[in-house]
Amino acid sequence: MANSWATLGVDLHLEPAGSGGLRRGLTDALRDAVRTGRLVPGTRLPSSRTLAADLGIARNTVAEAYADLVAEGWLTARQGSGTRVAAGVPATPHGRRGSAVGPAGTAPRRRAPGLPAHSLVPGAPDLAAFPRTEWLKAARRALATAPFEALGYGDPRGRPELRTALAVYLARARGVRTDPGTIMITAGFSHALRILGTVLRARGVRTVAVESYGLDVHRQLLRNAGLATPALPYGELGTDTGALGDARAVLLTPAHQFPMGTPLHPDRRTAVVEWARRTGGLILEDDYDGEFRYDRLPVGALQGLDPERVVYLGTASKSLAPGLRLGWMVLPPSLVEEAAAAKGQIDTCGVLDQLTLAEFLTSGAYDRHVRSSRLRYRRRRDALAAAVADRAPDVRVTGIAAGLHAVLRLPPGTEQSVIQAATWQGLALHGLAFHRHPQAVTEPLDALVVGYGTPPDSAWAGALEALCRVLP
Amino acid sequence: MANSWATLGVDLHLEPAGSGGLRRGLTDALRDAVRTGRLVPGTRLPSSRTLAADLGIARNTVAEAYADLVAEGWLTARQGSGTRVAAGVPATPHGRRGSAVGPAGTAPRRRAPGLPAHSLVPGAPDLAAFPRTEWLKAARRALATAPFEALGYGDPRGRPELRTALAVYLARARGVRTDPGTIMITAGFSHALRILGTVLRARGVRTVAVESYGLDVHRQLLRNAGLATPALPYGELGTDTGALGDARAVLLTPAHQFPMGTPLHPDRRTAVVEWARRTGGLILEDDYDGEFRYDRLPVGALQGLDPERVVYLGTASKSLAPGLRLGWMVLPPSLVEEAAAAKGQIDTCGVLDQLTLAEFLTSGAYDRHVRSSRLRYRRRRDALAAAVADRAPDVRVTGIAAGLHAVLRLPPGTEQSVIQAATWQGLALHGLAFHRHPQAVTEPLDALVVGYGTPPDSAWAGALEALCRVLP
Repeated sequence: MANSWATLGVDLHLEPAGSGGLRRGLTDALRDAVRTGRLVPGTRLPSSRTLAADLGIARNTVAEAYADLVAEGWLTARQGSGTRVAAGVPATPHGRRGSAVGPAGTAPRRRAPGLPAHSLVPGAPDLAAFPRTEWLKAARRALATAPFEALGYGDPRGRPELRTALAVYLARARGVRTDPGTIMITAGFSHALRILGTVLRARGVRTVAVESYGLDVHRQLLRNAGLATPALPYGELGTDTGALGDARAVLLTPAHQFPMGTPLHPDRRTAVVEWARRTGGLILEDDYDGEFRYDRLPVGALQGLDPERVVYLGTASKSLAPGLRLGWMVLPPSLVEEAAAAKGQIDTCGVLDQLTLAEFLTSGAYDRHVRSSRLRYRRRRDALAAAVADRAPDVRVTGIAAGLHAVLRLPPGTEQSVIQAATWQGLALHGLAFHRHPQAVTEPLDALVVGYGTPPDSAWAGALEALCRVLP
Repeated sequence: MANSWATLGVDLHLEPAGSGGLRRGLTDALRDAVRTGRLVPGTRLPSSRTLAADLGIARNTVAEAYADLVAEGWLTARQGSGTRVAAGVPATPHGRRGSAVGPAGTAPRRRAPGLPAHSLVPGAPDLAAFPRTEWLKAARRALATAPFEALGYGDPRGRPELRTALAVYLARARGVRTDPGTIMITAGFSHALRILGTVLRARGVRTVAVESYGLDVHRQLLRNAGLATPALPYGELGTDTGALGDARAVLLTPAHQFPMGTPLHPDRRTAVVEWARRTGGLILEDDYDGEFRYDRLPVGALQGLDPERVVYLGTASKSLAPGLRLGWMVLPPSLVEEAAAAKGQIDTCGVLDQLTLAEFLTSGAYDRHVRSSRLRYRRRRDALAAAVADRAPDVRVTGIAAGLHAVLRLPPGTEQSVIQAATWQGLALHGLAFHRHPQAVTEPLDALVVGYGTPPDSAWAGALEALCRVLP
């Protein structure tokens, strides 16, 4: 759920004034990033298509900005290797190259002033709220008590301290049935999905059904493993798990469909487990934000219904921070060995963060952080719902009161223009179309997927105001 | 370079008395590990072949110990899923299951007393010397200054702070020519080699030549990517890089051949770079312990001769600890994009350890730690050489004064019996045969690969004494 420009480590401050202004704003922001060394030589820029989608602006605008900078010598564009920061460009702040003038003697420019600084793109929690002090305390305690052998090469499943802490936590918080022996620590959800893709393909599986709405990067990981990813229909009761066809596995977000925001209907939960038992199928349960439900206790994990047929996938990316690169799988015992082989037979996650997270869980710091986050996000969701009801009566907030994002249903035919308007307001925003499976048979809906968890507290009010200004 | 029993997190204390004693000792140690929860239900044990090789005992002894424990109900053995800790066994220390008696009502036994506690298996630094306090200080400073965006999803190459710090450090310490844009952070050397295997295979490479002596796990990673790994001859001048045949890439340890302990002869350094230029070949330079040379300045990285034709690979596993799971590649610019794709287009290493290592490098703490480690390991190497000269005149310490291991040349035909004797002394030790390429054309040598870096300070004298007792 990374944004293409966020992964560049660059704040793009686009001027909200005229399409020439957009192009100039983007050009200035990128030039500035190269000049100051935030983009180092050799860095590959996102494709114009990707960056345009993420910024919600026309692809041409990005392409023209890139062309300007290639002409000026800041970037290079070569067939097959994309657009990159040119090798000869000057001074990083680390001073390895000297001058602060441009490659063609251009005088340095000041960064163009402007917006957005506002992002409501879903997929990340409020990173400014990461509990740094508590985390460091836990790290100190964990490191003080860890046996020195813990710092060696480790079990491919990860540290036993963390697997034990997770077994207890997941049973209590999510109704997961497990023991530490069947848990595998991964570098986040994507890493887990890569491992599972390899395992499934090696077992002869060719098709993993996915939902009509979801993340293309996840589908891509499965396709990279040689798996087809047909879409299941989506309707009132959630994803239609009756349409699995010849798929031998299915990737679902049962507790809180991403991005639609609804839970899988109880009948469908039962039905999909039935299907798995009957056909020997496997359910991959993506429980990305199971901690965050605001109106009632969250529905338990599907995995509790049949630990032999469900792989439960959790992550610290929403509850703490994506940068930790910590996720976990609860595997059917029969899959543990194959998953370890696919992971490479050694632990690939840093021991210190694993030990720290174990300490964080067992000391209660994790629960405290989740509780305070829940309160923060609930307030934001309530504020979002109230503001929308007050200022945009034609827009409806849908989905259950849960998670870090809400779906705002728009009047038909307005999604594209709202995204465009948001860009002009300097607000990064995703439309539902961005999350739609290209072969989805479901009727397209106009909606926004608003990641209200994303801004820091200090920017939340401004982001909400910017959103309200662009709603129809 | 993990030991199979170390990855189980279990100290195997084997009785050095009679082969019945060995079997009983192993049986007791494993039973105790299961009973006390150090081995949790579902854990897969190493194959009897692997464990026997690591312990230097007969495979039958391990197989019989396993059979005993299956008969007692502590383990299960099933075709295709190996030997595992049985599901019904009692109490982990975390108390999720209750009783402390065995599955068949066996009364708990005391752990069999005995040795080894001594390991001179190469591949790890002294884990007890990991600079915990300094690391935590660096973590605090790093976390205090990190922008909150650093905790989000990141660049597949890793954090720019660390890449910048490494660019400066590697240029200074190892003569590597790079800038932060061509560095990629990985979860250790193995992860880097996996990525490179994928990249090379995708480019149509089918053969990566390797050295006659090296680690089978590395060859296996390349084979997993579909690459053949023929062996280059090894002789007086080091690996013979004139015999590359139709290989289009070669994996080398130029500064300090692992395990033989010699540097690649200057003529051969030049020759292999010449070969790469002439044929478009690629050199993978494994600089696993380049920091540790005791008699003079280490020879600079081969990469400095031609950054377009050499991938430089470094790791924190020897200089700090394998558990950090941090390594780095310096890539020819033309490979950066393909490596990012093979890595999965997102950063997979925890941000906090990356930021901490960057701070560790820039603050000078890394240099201080390397200096004090160098002193410690040098003293151990000197003590080893003196003890061998004094007590085993038929044994010769070979290789340059560098790294964390030494090669002890033995009288012909004695390697196997020395390893066997070491096991009886409770000393884990690798013979050179363990590191020999199965198709090596080089004449076999009898030698030990002594990892003098492995024991904690408190165990070093005992380990050395145990070694001296078994030398011919």
